[in-house]
Amino acid sequence: MNFFEEAQIGKRHDIGSFTFTAERIKAFASQFDPQAFHLDEEAGKASLFGGLAASGWHTASVYMKLLVAHFVQQAKDARARGEEVAQSGPSPGFKNLKWPRPVLAGDTITYAYEATSMRPLASRPGWGIVFGKTTAVNQRGELVLTFENSVFLPCRQTNS
Amino acid sequence: MNFFEEAQIGKRHDIGSFTFTAERIKAFASQFDPQAFHLDEEAGKASLFGGLAASGWHTASVYMKLLVAHFVQQAKDARARGEEVAQSGPSPGFKNLKWPRPVLAGDTITYAYEATSMRPLASRPGWGIVFGKTTAVNQRGELVLTFENSVFLPCRQTNS
Repeated sequence: MNFFEEAQIGKRHDIGSFTFTAERIKAFASQFDPQAFHLDEEAGKASLFGGLAASGWHTASVYMKLLVAHFVQQAKDARARGEEVAQSGPSPGFKNLKWPRPVLAGDTITYAYEATSMRPLASRPGWGIVFGKTTAVNQRGELVLTFENSVFLPCRQTNS
Repeated sequence: MNFFEEAQIGKRHDIGSFTFTAERIKAFASQFDPQAFHLDEEAGKASLFGGLAASGWHTASVYMKLLVAHFVQQAKDARARGEEVAQSGPSPGFKNLKWPRPVLAGDTITYAYEATSMRPLASRPGWGIVFGKTTAVNQRGELVLTFENSVFLPCRQTNS
């Protein structure tokens, strides 16, 4: 989705998948979350996680990485169809982020997004806000991440 | 704080500060959030942000980086006093994360944490959960990040 009017309530978008190798888990953790259970296999096994576990901020940042790649691909597809493409606006934040299960080394996580509601922004004519829910599951279909987010999108009529 | 019993409701903890240089903003964004307004000064100026802006996930990940460094220092101080030190447990998630203002290149962001409530975990004897609020402000004291979080901590009596 690029323009506000293109958001479709209830439609599930597969955002993509990512395998959290031990190397990637440790690389992120060493920069942003250097706790033993994110850096060392033995410490991970001895923790509540039961294995080398990805930082929750890593799981969340990979969502953003895949979402941007998804938008880039959508934009390419739209341009190939001769359609106008808008840049998404910023996100004001999100609610109720949960990490119900750990992401362990070797897990492949698949992310999906679904818009749940939308409205034009009274305070900023030409823009709308779309609320949605993001979920991520591991290779066994178990939920590892969920949150409710929102994003500002430009309205089509102001850009054409 | 390391043990559940050491959490103090309402006490403000300064977690630390971090300067978001253009170089750091672009390095994070190129890995996890490669949108134009996070990668290019001119695109940032033309966006709603009004300048090269850090990814919100970068602002949040730096909180974790500083928090871990804060815990490591606390543990060193406790050991120097001859006190026992426990490893913090995982976080089940957080609520109501907001990015009320952008973090722009050159901004220095200062993070603080305050515990707001706590209770023993009925489902996991020997552990407790502490709920708190994290805030981050820029060099002008303007709020750029806030969220409510929770963390599992071991109780002292099971570790001594």
